[in-house]
Order: sequence, then C-alpha cells, then structure tokens
Amino acid sequence: METKKNGTEAIPYKIYLDEQEMPTHYYNVRADMPIKPAPLLNPGTHQPMTAEELSGVFCTELVKQELDNETREIAIPEEIRNFYRMYRPSPLVRAYELERKLGTPAKIYYKFEGNNTSGSHKLNSAITQAYYAKNQGLKGLTTETGAGQWGTALSMACAYLGMDLKVYMVKGSYEQKPFRREVMRTYGATVTPSPSDTTEAGRRILAEHPGTTGSLGCAISEAVEYAVTHEGYRYVLGSVLNQVLLHQSVIGLEAKTAMEKYGIKPDIIIGCAGGGSNLGGLIAPFMGEKLRGEADYHFIAVEPASCPSLTRGVYAYDFCDTGMICPLAKMYTLGCDFIPSPNHAGGLRYHGMSPILSELYHEGLLEARSVEQTRVFDAAQYFARIEGTLPAPESSHAIRVAIDEALRCKETGEEKTILFGLTGTGYFDLVAYQQYNDGTMTDYIPTDEDLARSLSRLPKME
Amino acid sequence: METKKNGTEAIPYKIYLDEQEMPTHYYNVRADMPIKPAPLLNPGTHQPMTAEELSGVFCTELVKQELDNETREIAIPEEIRNFYRMYRPSPLVRAYELERKLGTPAKIYYKFEGNNTSGSHKLNSAITQAYYAKNQGLKGLTTETGAGQWGTALSMACAYLGMDLKVYMVKGSYEQKPFRREVMRTYGATVTPSPSDTTEAGRRILAEHPGTTGSLGCAISEAVEYAVTHEGYRYVLGSVLNQVLLHQSVIGLEAKTAMEKYGIKPDIIIGCAGGGSNLGGLIAPFMGEKLRGEADYHFIAVEPASCPSLTRGVYAYDFCDTGMICPLAKMYTLGCDFIPSPNHAGGLRYHGMSPILSELYHEGLLEARSVEQTRVFDAAQYFARIEGTLPAPESSHAIRVAIDEALRCKETGEEKTILFGLTGTGYFDLVAYQQYNDGTMTDYIPTDEDLARSLSRLPKME
Repeated sequence: METKKNGTEAIPYKIYLDEQEMPTHYYNVRADMPIKPAPLLNPGTHQPMTAEELSGVFCTELVKQELDNETREIAIPEEIRNFYRMYRPSPLVRAYELERKLGTPAKIYYKFEGNNTSGSHKLNSAITQAYYAKNQGLKGLTTETGAGQWGTALSMACAYLGMDLKVYMVKGSYEQKPFRREVMRTYGATVTPSPSDTTEAGRRILAEHPGTTGSLGCAISEAVEYAVTHEGYRYVLGSVLNQVLLHQSVIGLEAKTAMEKYGIKPDIIIGCAGGGSNLGGLIAPFMGEKLRGEADYHFIAVEPASCPSLTRGVYAYDFCDTGMICPLAKMYTLGCDFIPSPNHAGGLRYHGMSPILSELYHEGLLEARSVEQTRVFDAAQYFARIEGTLPAPESSHAIRVAIDEALRCKETGEEKTILFGLTGTGYFDLVAYQQYNDGTMTDYIPTDEDLARSLSRLPKME
Repeated sequence: METKKNGTEAIPYKIYLDEQEMPTHYYNVRADMPIKPAPLLNPGTHQPMTAEELSGVFCTELVKQELDNETREIAIPEEIRNFYRMYRPSPLVRAYELERKLGTPAKIYYKFEGNNTSGSHKLNSAITQAYYAKNQGLKGLTTETGAGQWGTALSMACAYLGMDLKVYMVKGSYEQKPFRREVMRTYGATVTPSPSDTTEAGRRILAEHPGTTGSLGCAISEAVEYAVTHEGYRYVLGSVLNQVLLHQSVIGLEAKTAMEKYGIKPDIIIGCAGGGSNLGGLIAPFMGEKLRGEADYHFIAVEPASCPSLTRGVYAYDFCDTGMICPLAKMYTLGCDFIPSPNHAGGLRYHGMSPILSELYHEGLLEARSVEQTRVFDAAQYFARIEGTLPAPESSHAIRVAIDEALRCKETGEEKTILFGLTGTGYFDLVAYQQYNDGTMTDYIPTDEDLARSLSRLPKME
C-alpha cells in the first residue's frame, strides 16, 4: 500500500508542521461565543470573582487570561514557543492501518499528544503557567496530582525554568504509582503524599480519618494552603479553567493547519472529557468557525460511564473542589462530593466540566456520550495492536467512539472524515491493562440514587 | 531565541524527513569493509556455519542477509516501510537548550529512537525479522528478553502481523518489571518466566538450582529449544548479528539524509554499545564513507564500566550465549560466562560485541570508552531537566560522553558538531532513577581477576 491520495494531495501517515507553521497565538474561543461562559463566583459572597481576588491564588497574567472573554488571539511568548519546539509540533496521524483493519470507508485521523515525557497534552499549559509565574518573580508553584500526568508535566516545566515545585499527590496514587512519583522527583519536584502533616488541612484530615488514602479534594486543599501561606508561591491547576483551555488551543490550531495543508475537512471531531482541557483545546478553532457560521462540525465529548458529568449531571453553580474552598463555577456537575468509582482513567474522574464546554454543550453545540471502561479497553488493546501506540485509558475513550463512528460508516457506506484526540500514552497505566488482560476488569455505573444524593448538596444560589 | 542559522540554512529544533525521503534500502556496511567480519562457526566442528545449518534457527531470507558480505544496498519491502511509517522517520533533534546550558560552542544533535511504544530502536529490526518469518509461512517466533525493550518491540511486530510469540523473560526481570510484562501481554505475546517447566533446559536448571531468578543465557536456551522443537517456529535475536545491524542502518541513513538537507557534517558520532545494534546502525553510512575514503568521522562507542567488552575484553571466538548452544562469533568478549554486575542499563549487560563493530574497532576505526553508572545518571537527569525527554539508562551512556565532548569544546573553543544516538526512553527504568534520586546508586567495576577468570574459559580454537 503506497501513501494514499485524497483529492490530488498525497497524505502521509504522519503530518508534521514545520516549526514556522506552529501557532504564534493561542485562540480564545470565548471571543466568538455569543453567550459567554458564566463567571467564577466568590464562594462567600456569590459575586463574580474580581481580578484582585483571583490574584491571591493565580499569577497576574493568568488572571487576565482567565477573565478575558473578548480577545480572540493572545500571543504565545517566544520563550514558551521555544519550549514547545522541543516536543511540538505534535503529529497529526492518518490511521491507515486502523481503517484497513476495520474495513471502513471512513478516514480516521488523530492528533497525538503523547510524544513527550509527561506522556500527555498537559505540558502545553504547564509550561505557560510556570512561565508567567516565573516572569512575575515568583519562586515556586504548588499543585495536586492524582493520576500524575499533570504533576509530571508541571515538574518538567518547573525544571526547565528553574522553579521550585511542591506536588501534593493523593496518597493512594503515591503508593500505587511509585514510578510516577519518581519521574517527578527526577525533574526536581518535591512530592508529598496527601493528606500530610505539612498543612493545617492535612493534619485535620489525618486526625479525623487516620489511615485514609486521601482524595483529590484533600490534595487541592493542601496545595492551595501551601501556596497562600508561603511567600512567592502560587497554586496552579491543570484543567477546567478558561486559561487552561486557551493554552490547549495549540492542539486544535496545529491540527487545523495540518489538515488545511492537505485539503482535509473533518466531519466529526472526538475527544475524551474529564475537566475538558484536551477536548476544549482540540475543538477550539473548529468551534470558532462553527460559532461564526463559517463551517459545521459534529463534536463528540466522551466521558466514562462511571463519571458522567455531561450526560447525567446538571448545569449549575458548584464548587470546583471537594474541600469547598475554591470559587464556584457554573458547569455540568455531579455534585462536588460525588465520589467517582475507581475507574482507571484517573484523568476523567472529575465531578464537573469546564465552564466553556458546559455552556457550549448547554447550547447544543456538542454531543456527549458515556462509555463503560471494559469497552474502552477493548478499543485500547485493538488500537495498540494495529497502530502501535499504547494509549492512555483517558485517550482510549476517544478511540472507542472513533471506532464506533467508523463502523457506522462501514454500515452506511459514508466516507466521513473523523478526527480524534489521542491525548497520551499508557506507560503508567499498566495495572489497568493487567486487569484487562487477566479478565478481571469491571464496569462501574452510578445509580440514579447515587447521583440524586450528591446533586442534592449543590450550593444554594439566590 | 529564534531558530538559529548554520551557514545559510535555518536549523529547526527537530528535523523530520518527509516520508518519501525515508530510506528504501538498508545499507550493508560489510560491503565496504576491506576486511570482513569473521564468520560464525559451528560450535561442534569449528567450521563456518552454512546457510543450511543456520536455517534451522533463522528463517531463509534472514540467513541470506546474515551471510551477505557483498551487497551494498538491500531493499526494504513495502510492507515493512508501511510499518515504519507509523513511527518513523524519527526526529533528528538539535539540542539547542542543552548547548545553551552547557555554554559550549559545540553543536549537539541527537537521533531520537524512543517515540514508539517499545521505547527504543529495537522495533526497526523486530518488524523485519517478523515479516520475513511470516512471509516464509511460519506460525510464530520465540525470543528471550531481559530488560524488555526487545521483547516489547517483537510483541508489537508480531501483533501487527498476526503471528504468535513466546517470550522467555528472565525470572528476576519478570518479577521486578511486571509492567514490561503487561505491555507484551497487551500485544498478545505469551510471556513465560525463565527458567520454566515448559522446556527440557528449564526443567534441568530448576532441578539443579531451585529458586533461581534465571539469567539471559538460560532464557536463550529455553527460547531456542522451543523454536527447534515446535513446527513453524523460529528463534529471533535483537542484537549482535549482522542482519540486525543491517536493519538498524535506517537510523544512520535517516540521520545522514536529515543532516545533508541542512548542510551539516558531524565531527563526532557517539552511541552506547551493548550488543552493538544501535551504534552499528547509527554509524553505518558514515562509516561507509570513511571506509571508502570519502570523509572522516570520529566514532565513539560507550559502554558501562561494569561490562567493558571493547575496553577490557579480548578479540576472540566465543559463544554468543552463556548456555554455549549458539554458534561461535569472533568478537570482543569478556568471556561467555562473565556475569555482569546489576548495572541498570540492562541492554548493555552483554559479554560480547557485534562481530562487525568488533572488527572495525580492532582496525582502529572507532574509539571506545567506558563510564560508571553514577556519572551516566548525572547526565541522564541533567539532560531530562533541560531537554525534556527522560532517557533510558542505556542511551544515557551516549549522553554522558556527548556532554563530556561538548565541555571539552568549551575549553578549547572548538565548534565541533556532535551527533549521538538517543536510543530510548526510561519509563520502565524508574527503579534505577529512584536509586539515583535517593543517593543509593553505586558503581560496579570488575576486577582484573574477575576478567581473567571469565576469559580463561574461552573456547580453544586450533
């Protein structure tokens, strides 16, 4: 099989942009949204968070980006573009072998973000957040990590810039994923299992629940406390926020440029959705065209059946964290004390969804589907054996639906062009693959009663 | 810092060839060697192994390649080139950030082979060996694996081609590296801890040494036994052999084409050397030029101080395996029952060296250096923090010497161009990084007595 033709243009297996074709500006989809995402609210006053209030937690330039609903293009500083050049542009891959094995007339492309040591797209925002913090003269950053992709990405960014980093890692993950911890330590981060005795919040939880293996909510509380009680530190977050989706727009911008170079127009664009940073970044410039009435695309957000914020949650103001210390965000949520079952896609175990994506979904501009993890791993293994790359469990949600759509095309004979986001690799998820290989993996689906319970505790808004 | 200039050409951070620039033929350096590597000998008769004898173990086309000292260019079948297109061309990276941090006038490039799920260059030969076996109508392959890169690569190749694969994995590694095992299982391979009760050899060793954690020598014996006692199976090997260096020439061919595109000529070419497949592949086309008198390069093979076959071994006929069932090869060796200390670069713990590289080294055409593993990990961590990528311990040997040479240029002011091979990533080597991070890593250097002992048992040749 020679490299195939689409129209007059030969399309290679992998399309790499030249460095001069890489984006020089982030694209801010909010500028094109007629209805803007709802603002973050102060949890005490229920009034929109001001720039001043946000500056206690985030650094100044990022607060500006968080609140900016108007500027369409925001320049990427030269230093960040140099960092990007070490691992970007990421390839846009034509899945010829997968198409052939499926026997589908569909054309399948994926944007692969796993070719860097953090193993995912998280690095795109980590370097930007660290850069602005450094530029402001800050000494260090704090964050929490569960599955570990975000903590690893931020460790890499801080190592590069010579900044200090304190990572609070959910104790259960700290113990089960010692290798993730070691990668972060290799990049110079201090990794503390949470809850710990290094913060008030941690000590309180340890006293109340001796022997607990922790939670993301608790780790966030500790990381925020460390930042606000130490001079020269700020807290950073790897998803959900507007600023993070802004930085992740590089994924979509590169994908769009690469496709246009070869005259390809996707019909369906698919991404997994936890907090929404990858999906939001991948679809951003395409959604912009749709919002401006210049083109139409079918967007699909894929979430785990075990944590179905879009498909079974409500659109309401809720806390971003379990500890209820962060601002309120209007988003699709399962309730901030919803405890997701131990699904292996740790990056998708979040009770809420980015306010930008929530608003777009609310307006019917994207579809959402939820899938069970055994079906996700069926797709993951199938994909790995055919296309080579071992996908992360999170990314495999998108693979699952891309295969479903390609098989539908096989039935109907439609030659649709499918683009999905392959956000990362599964090197640190082999406990999950082992369960799958052993046939001991199970599915978890919350009952209606579970959801009613956690949703009954949403904050009361007047 | 903008993308820099070298002469008139702007050199990007990463040079990717277009697919049509990828090699269509392997380059066989033996064709340009005035003195050919010594032939493999039958261990019983001490006569050169005939094609017929070799065909019991290897498939026909590979036997032909193994014995062919004359054909300069050997076509890469279209099917293999399609597989290559899923993860090649690999990038040639300009280490701008490393140069800047070192403050060296040297220009540093590395050819990065870690961007595939097997995590190393091993996949380049795995697919070729599996392809010819499949073409010959064989049902499956057997092999051994220690560190696991080779086993993983072969699993990926066999999954792609729909072939069966039995991997005998050294029991110690099987237990210490459960994730490596799971990757192979995900790709459909059967992974058996060796020694096992599935072979005569395994049962004998288990009876003699109950509770042993096995050795590479034992795993080879089991894999070979399975292949020769099962219809439709052959044994394959991931390094040392002429055929493997031939397949790995794609590394050097791509690197050379990429450099020529930008008018770059390396002065020094550096690679780590265990069995020699990566180094042999990287230097092949450059060595060809040197052998033909068309250009000169300084080649450096880097080996661990704990397993210094080139720097402290002898050039003699020896067994390729500890079990003494394989043919004899003339090579630099420490003696086939030399037991390398538990250095973390598992891929470099081999008592011998490829006959091709051994002959070239014997003729003074390349330099060899040995380095201690703590100095190697100093370089690994330094590199990771600056260039992003977490390197494999094996590859970090080359990084160490590249940095040493760049620092020498800083002293002398010479603007040398350095090319090294970054063969793989360290995702499965985090136990080693943990030791390094904890400050508990030690160095192992065999004593002269150790070496005299293992070298005293070389086979007697008349």
